[in-house]
Amino acid sequence: MEHATEGLIFGAAYYEEYLPDDRLERDMELMAEAGINTIRIAESTWSVEEPRPGEYDFSHVTRVIEKAAEYGIRVIVGTPTYAIPAWLAAMDGTIQGENRFGARQNFDITNPTYLKYAKQIIRELVKATSAYPNVIGYQLDNETKHYGVHSPQVLESFREWLRARFEKIEKLNAAFGLNHWSNSVASFEELPDPTGAVNPSYACAFEEFRRELVEKFLKWQSGIVSSLKRADQFLTHNFDQDWHPRPGGGLQEGWSDGIQPDANWFTCARAVTLMGTDIYCPGGEELTGREIAFGGDLARSVKRAPYLVLESQSQSFPGWLPLPGQLRLMAISHIASGALGLMYWPWLSLHNGIESYWKGILSQDGEPGETYQEIKAIGAVFRRLSPALAGMRKENRIALVVSPEALHALRHFPTDPDLGYNDLVREFHTALYELNLECDIIYDREPDWSPYRVLLFPQLYCASEALIARVRDFVAAGGTVLASFRSFFADENLKIYHDRQPHGLTDVFGMHYSRFTRDRESGWMELLEPEQAAVAGRYRDKYWGGIAAATRQRFGKGHAWYLGTRLEREDLKNFLLRVCETAGIDPPVYRWPVVCRRAVAADGCRLWFLLNYSPEDHQIKSPTNTRELLSGVSFGVSKPITLTDWDAVILKEELP
Amino acid sequence: MEHATEGLIFGAAYYEEYLPDDRLERDMELMAEAGINTIRIAESTWSVEEPRPGEYDFSHVTRVIEKAAEYGIRVIVGTPTYAIPAWLAAMDGTIQGENRFGARQNFDITNPTYLKYAKQIIRELVKATSAYPNVIGYQLDNETKHYGVHSPQVLESFREWLRARFEKIEKLNAAFGLNHWSNSVASFEELPDPTGAVNPSYACAFEEFRRELVEKFLKWQSGIVSSLKRADQFLTHNFDQDWHPRPGGGLQEGWSDGIQPDANWFTCARAVTLMGTDIYCPGGEELTGREIAFGGDLARSVKRAPYLVLESQSQSFPGWLPLPGQLRLMAISHIASGALGLMYWPWLSLHNGIESYWKGILSQDGEPGETYQEIKAIGAVFRRLSPALAGMRKENRIALVVSPEALHALRHFPTDPDLGYNDLVREFHTALYELNLECDIIYDREPDWSPYRVLLFPQLYCASEALIARVRDFVAAGGTVLASFRSFFADENLKIYHDRQPHGLTDVFGMHYSRFTRDRESGWMELLEPEQAAVAGRYRDKYWGGIAAATRQRFGKGHAWYLGTRLEREDLKNFLLRVCETAGIDPPVYRWPVVCRRAVAADGCRLWFLLNYSPEDHQIKSPTNTRELLSGVSFGVSKPITLTDWDAVILKEELP
Amino acid sequence: MEHATEGLIFGAAYYEEYLPDDRLERDMELMAEAGINTIRIAESTWSVEEPRPGEYDFSHVTRVIEKAAEYGIRVIVGTPTYAIPAWLAAMDGTIQGENRFGARQNFDITNPTYLKYAKQIIRELVKATSAYPNVIGYQLDNETKHYGVHSPQVLESFREWLRARFEKIEKLNAAFGLNHWSNSVASFEELPDPTGAVNPSYACAFEEFRRELVEKFLKWQSGIVSSLKRADQFLTHNFDQDWHPRPGGGLQEGWSDGIQPDANWFTCARAVTLMGTDIYCPGGEELTGREIAFGGDLARSVKRAPYLVLESQSQSFPGWLPLPGQLRLMAISHIASGALGLMYWPWLSLHNGIESYWKGILSQDGEPGETYQEIKAIGAVFRRLSPALAGMRKENRIALVVSPEALHALRHFPTDPDLGYNDLVREFHTALYELNLECDIIYDREPDWSPYRVLLFPQLYCASEALIARVRDFVAAGGTVLASFRSFFADENLKIYHDRQPHGLTDVFGMHYSRFTRDRESGWMELLEPEQAAVAGRYRDKYWGGIAAATRQRFGKGHAWYLGTRLEREDLKNFLLRVCETAGIDPPVYRWPVVCRRAVAADGCRLWFLLNYSPEDHQIKSPTNTRELLSGVSFGVSKPITLTDWDAVILKEELP
Repeated sequence: MEHATEGLIFGAAYYEEYLPDDRLERDMELMAEAGINTIRIAESTWSVEEPRPGEYDFSHVTRVIEKAAEYGIRVIVGTPTYAIPAWLAAMDGTIQGENRFGARQNFDITNPTYLKYAKQIIRELVKATSAYPNVIGYQLDNETKHYGVHSPQVLESFREWLRARFEKIEKLNAAFGLNHWSNSVASFEELPDPTGAVNPSYACAFEEFRRELVEKFLKWQSGIVSSLKRADQFLTHNFDQDWHPRPGGGLQEGWSDGIQPDANWFTCARAVTLMGTDIYCPGGEELTGREIAFGGDLARSVKRAPYLVLESQSQSFPGWLPLPGQLRLMAISHIASGALGLMYWPWLSLHNGIESYWKGILSQDGEPGETYQEIKAIGAVFRRLSPALAGMRKENRIALVVSPEALHALRHFPTDPDLGYNDLVREFHTALYELNLECDIIYDREPDWSPYRVLLFPQLYCASEALIARVRDFVAAGGTVLASFRSFFADENLKIYHDRQPHGLTDVFGMHYSRFTRDRESGWMELLEPEQAAVAGRYRDKYWGGIAAATRQRFGKGHAWYLGTRLEREDLKNFLLRVCETAGIDPPVYRWPVVCRRAVAADGCRLWFLLNYSPEDHQIKSPTNTRELLSGVSFGVSKPITLTDWDAVILKEELP
Repeated sequence: MEHATEGLIFGAAYYEEYLPDDRLERDMELMAEAGINTIRIAESTWSVEEPRPGEYDFSHVTRVIEKAAEYGIRVIVGTPTYAIPAWLAAMDGTIQGENRFGARQNFDITNPTYLKYAKQIIRELVKATSAYPNVIGYQLDNETKHYGVHSPQVLESFREWLRARFEKIEKLNAAFGLNHWSNSVASFEELPDPTGAVNPSYACAFEEFRRELVEKFLKWQSGIVSSLKRADQFLTHNFDQDWHPRPGGGLQEGWSDGIQPDANWFTCARAVTLMGTDIYCPGGEELTGREIAFGGDLARSVKRAPYLVLESQSQSFPGWLPLPGQLRLMAISHIASGALGLMYWPWLSLHNGIESYWKGILSQDGEPGETYQEIKAIGAVFRRLSPALAGMRKENRIALVVSPEALHALRHFPTDPDLGYNDLVREFHTALYELNLECDIIYDREPDWSPYRVLLFPQLYCASEALIARVRDFVAAGGTVLASFRSFFADENLKIYHDRQPHGLTDVFGMHYSRFTRDRESGWMELLEPEQAAVAGRYRDKYWGGIAAATRQRFGKGHAWYLGTRLEREDLKNFLLRVCETAGIDPPVYRWPVVCRRAVAADGCRLWFLLNYSPEDHQIKSPTNTRELLSGVSFGVSKPITLTDWDAVILKEELP
Repeated sequence: MEHATEGLIFGAAYYEEYLPDDRLERDMELMAEAGINTIRIAESTWSVEEPRPGEYDFSHVTRVIEKAAEYGIRVIVGTPTYAIPAWLAAMDGTIQGENRFGARQNFDITNPTYLKYAKQIIRELVKATSAYPNVIGYQLDNETKHYGVHSPQVLESFREWLRARFEKIEKLNAAFGLNHWSNSVASFEELPDPTGAVNPSYACAFEEFRRELVEKFLKWQSGIVSSLKRADQFLTHNFDQDWHPRPGGGLQEGWSDGIQPDANWFTCARAVTLMGTDIYCPGGEELTGREIAFGGDLARSVKRAPYLVLESQSQSFPGWLPLPGQLRLMAISHIASGALGLMYWPWLSLHNGIESYWKGILSQDGEPGETYQEIKAIGAVFRRLSPALAGMRKENRIALVVSPEALHALRHFPTDPDLGYNDLVREFHTALYELNLECDIIYDREPDWSPYRVLLFPQLYCASEALIARVRDFVAAGGTVLASFRSFFADENLKIYHDRQPHGLTDVFGMHYSRFTRDRESGWMELLEPEQAAVAGRYRDKYWGGIAAATRQRFGKGHAWYLGTRLEREDLKNFLLRVCETAGIDPPVYRWPVVCRRAVAADGCRLWFLLNYSPEDHQIKSPTNTRELLSGVSFGVSKPITLTDWDAVILKEELP
């Protein structure tokens, strides 16, 4: 990433194409004054850049790049391919589903006509911009997913994909259990459209296949841009998480909430050189920093490298207008998770269209208001911090192991209407977050678990034999594992294992179970039958009372914990503390709502980001001899430091 | 209206076509006995009148007219065009959407085949009936709306409509902000189907265009009937409001609730000579009279003239059976709002079909039951009242300014899931209603504001520069204006103004704002920044506390108030009282749940309709020397008058 | 039924086709050990039995039959026709609606191609299996309904059906009230697709017609199987009730809940020689036995004969895992209702597919766990009980009269969003159940009412003149009738009767009414006007207080009760006690949650099944000198017997 930036990136999305009047000069001036050093442009503006097929006009793009250069502002150029022009939407077969005029991502990413025009415009755009010195990188498409693609060609490819995986139709019939309800077929050709299929194994295989189409698409774009860009220009993509709509909201309101069901970040990220993501979160009184930490832990773990927050909120949706101090707290929180910087979306609030209330740094009046002033103050902070934080790294010993495959499986076999896959993943992450125990978030197919002492498996419903063997080896070699209920239950084809549960690990966990039910509070209760394991918790209930709800056991050199039910937040926190204790992880010093995020500076000194996610003041103690990087003040060990409401400080270890 | 009626109209809808046996004579006898002087017939009976294409049979119609004449009953004849026969539904292209057999209003009102047959039957019907002396008028169609029409021809006309408005495609692209998400087009021909379009400017323009199709349709019918009817026969239409489904209801239950989204009453009314409407409201314990006042204020304001309530409820839906006294109270309330009379729907409860539980004056047993007896008592009252109320007029100095355009805009940009456009309009109206401050309800494009001292703008989200200039002039010339949050925010194309808010009026209101958020109670909070304005209310809140929530300022000879947040009912009432005080409007004398509606009799004497909308008795005082018109009793000034539960009295000023 | 079974049937569904490995021998061994004497196989496995058109392979079927024979296990063979193979789904027109791969019952049961292949495979299957001595019967299809069939041919047949019923189109127009909203037609040919029709008379006639298609289909299957099976083999069908989805559930969770809307059990049962049904109910803490009693009372009444529970739950859905003792209690409850036995679904929990969490006797691990042990204990009980219960009969004097026609009518005219037709039927049944007053549940068109002293009519909305005459005769001859609100209101075409309500019975009930409303608690209030009837209950309410809510009258030799409103559970129980008292039915001895179900053994001695549906112990008294069949212990009259939580005892009268 040394090619991309010097110092922290502080930026905003800028759409000159959308402006109601010509205010480019004024905007650049205001940006420069606010310390904004990078803008992101051009994604989603295809109809402007190619108003008619083959007629290109990049004047908006180059004008902005040139003006930005005058003000020392760097530019990330986005390929415009995720929103297609009306003329392309009118061509046969590009659009799928209802032809909603103007919606993004309503087309077939495998359609040859779409791909032909996409390739041409990407090439023209890169040719028109790559020579500008202040163009530091390219963003490929935006928030790419598979958009529910299911054209006849896609189905044909899916059949080929299945043939490659299973070779014989009998194997597929058996693996998916297609005899059920007369679903078995006599040949691959006979396999029907999986849309609305009732067999979850078949339906989930189609989802996995479609996630691979996304990966293929991004690699295809990567190839096109790479062949034309400068070597020092990076490639990134704006990965988005699952989206949690705001209850009772409209106006597209919601927040980033867990792993993405319709694209696999872990494999798609191979298409880029710099991991990018957008992170939106509830604000105002609802701000907790959880989403910032979750999104950061996830984005950082994908490449085990710093990442860029390509979009984040400033004025946010109505109702989440930041309270005084919150914008600064949020910005420092992103850095604390290992971000190279953050960019706001957008600079200027839009005057038309359905994103008008997704407000930017400036309101629609275009004036430098209260929010601008707060941003400007952060800009100054970032400038000051850049040298000290350059080369900072994160070193976590706990990993949360996730799987888009398990996510889809549990959509078919929900634990509870209120507990989707991401819900439990988030519950685990939130518990760790509030404990100030930092974690990475890794794919279950991630081959290297060596950095970790503790692996947490929330509802890893489907796991191959190979994965299960790795879990055994990890524990045997000294690792600590915690699996939640419904983990290791089915194989990679969602066939439930036909021996004792948890499959292949009953000796590791020292228990098995065959019965489960629900209660009103937890939503799930497995009736665990310990063999050698110690009981780590029991149910309290007239009939199931006394039965084990959680177990722990030493296996080989490590420890294996199993949690058969869902716990309330505080109970889960206590449980996780016990698990981490077995792994020799020290209990945390700071207590929620003071959040402590740690890192190691380039010079090897330790860094503590101390974040007050509350409207009350809190007094904390300096963990050692430190210097506070924002104020420059030094603190002796255990010296009290006051965090006012929504405050943030950064302490750096001072060697004597 | 002198041609239509002498005295108050008291009537019912009558469908001889639906009778299970021949009871015409019996019905007319019962009606005459009950004082029913008018019936409304024939709308919705096309399949009976033209069982096969071109075969007409109006015998049901003429038989009823003739029998009614024998009993001195007048007739309003409806054109049958809003429910088409199966044979017409089977012809190509008449039906749109799902071909639901028997549903009304499921066809394309621009379809040439439909229009051809509609024209023929209207002509034949009017020819067959206009000579009868007791036919006093015609109703054109019924509750006409655009029914979601979006055929290819409609889209073509829409493109022409846009071309006429914008001339150049670049202007349209800019006005609607189509560069956003690659929505811009290179020509008018390229403009796609707006169904499901994501650009609110484009989507709302299509809604406006379709409301104009309704106006065009009614004018077309008006032309056909006018060319054949007698000069003394009126033309009316049964305008319906937005419909609020009863929570958890079935059976088509609900009530009239605010301005109609899919037809513009204000422009469509030009097609008729007598404004007509239907008004349904919650009854029984839920009766408040609010819907009667709202619907009446709206219908009366459209032509600034008396109107006819063409449909109203008698036995109503299950659950809203009128409590003793309520039918009389409701009838007098309609008159108090300026109605020429009211007609019940229907006379006899239907024996088949989905309206069977929309019960009439008689239950399905056809016997003159309890409800009939109450109606008969009202009939006698109406006969007695007619001379005294002939020529009565309403003179309101407050107007609520409404806009179907703002209604649609806010569907795209909702303030709060619980606060649609009509909700706030109704909140303002209800507050005035409970304050006994009467108002007109006018279109924002109404050119004549001279009758009013106070104009209220609840969420007038989109306003042209011309309208904004008129608001300025109105205040400057001495008027009082109250604008709520989110008024004057965008132009007529929903482009948010790109300067200080409220656009063009910051000097008039003496304040501006650029930030807003939501809180849990109000749903919206604008952070007002007063310039010269006085603060009329402040937020109470840790972070936003002290910031102005409402402002007032003297501007020119008038006063401009601004309310940046939603208020609870009682707070809003107090606030409106302060606003009206500035306009020199006297505080009201009577207090909710006693409702006072005022008018001026033909002889210039004042009238007070005093309505007890509660199950408790209330004692009030005579406002001056009066005579009670129902009892004939006279009261000296301040003499006590007892209103029993659900009672109504009409006091007329007695000059000494 | 003497051919089918000796002793109680105790069985399970067994799908060798779905097994993940070969465990047939092991399963048969475990079954035999558990006392399982019958399995049900082969329904839903068409794609295995005919992988390609015309290629038959019944090896799975015969292998299981043969192995079962070795262990003395009998077999019921199901025709596989309710889930079609992909190759048949791909043939023109077999599938209707969305082509959901793998869904059952997504095809047109009148499609000629479907019928051709169905006939062939049924014939082949019966030929391949009927000679096996342990094949005791056949199940025709499974849970057959009409699946919303509405192909052009079906519409054509429907028109013919209407022509046969009405002869002249004018009669149909009048009967359905089609003049309303211009729905009348000039010929039968013109009658449109009733899908989405707004005329409830027309829509409900189509439903009735489609229920007849189901009957026709089952009789067609019955004919095919009968021509090839042995004379001693029975024919059954797995009738399913309406399905109540579990609130907030997923995983197909729910329970059997009232009469089936889309098939008429009473007429379809003519196709079989042994009535069969599935019964699922809420379990765990929510177990009440109500569904078992309801389903049993219904299934038994259809043929007035013992029935077989072809499917019932063992481990059930997550959350309803049986508490200790509940499985035994449920099994005895089925027998107490008159079942010949019960079969669990399935034996082994499935490893793939959407029914994976519809858990069987064994969990997916295939081991004989806790649930298996409980089942085994029940198997032993059943073996012991068989001789004593052989030939047991039920003799009820109360009947609940139901009607699928009324069910559909009330979907169009709902009493209350919370009160569907089945809800009130279930409320009546539950009240009787908790009173320990047993009842039959009969079709309103059942010609023989002679066994009953009391007939209950909950919302028998539509009733022909003939039925009404029978009600009159029944009362006149000494019977007791209780009709709820909304009974006898409309005729068989849903035309509301146009004279006094309740139509044709005002002298029988001695009252009439024409007005009704709703209140918040009851959802419905008819304002009854007694003529000669005594008032059996009055409303309490400011306005309607004092008006009759219920009446009773002696008419002829019998009694006629009418209930104009919905009562709370305890009030309804008290009311029903009063009604039954008039009929000379003794008040029950035992009190809920102790349930008493009675029968008469083959030797004429009385039987009491005493069931403790609660987690608490209860002490009861022996009703006479009895012997407890499970323990063999004898009790003198009034001797105390302790029922522990979820316990069941069976007392048999001991003659001195």
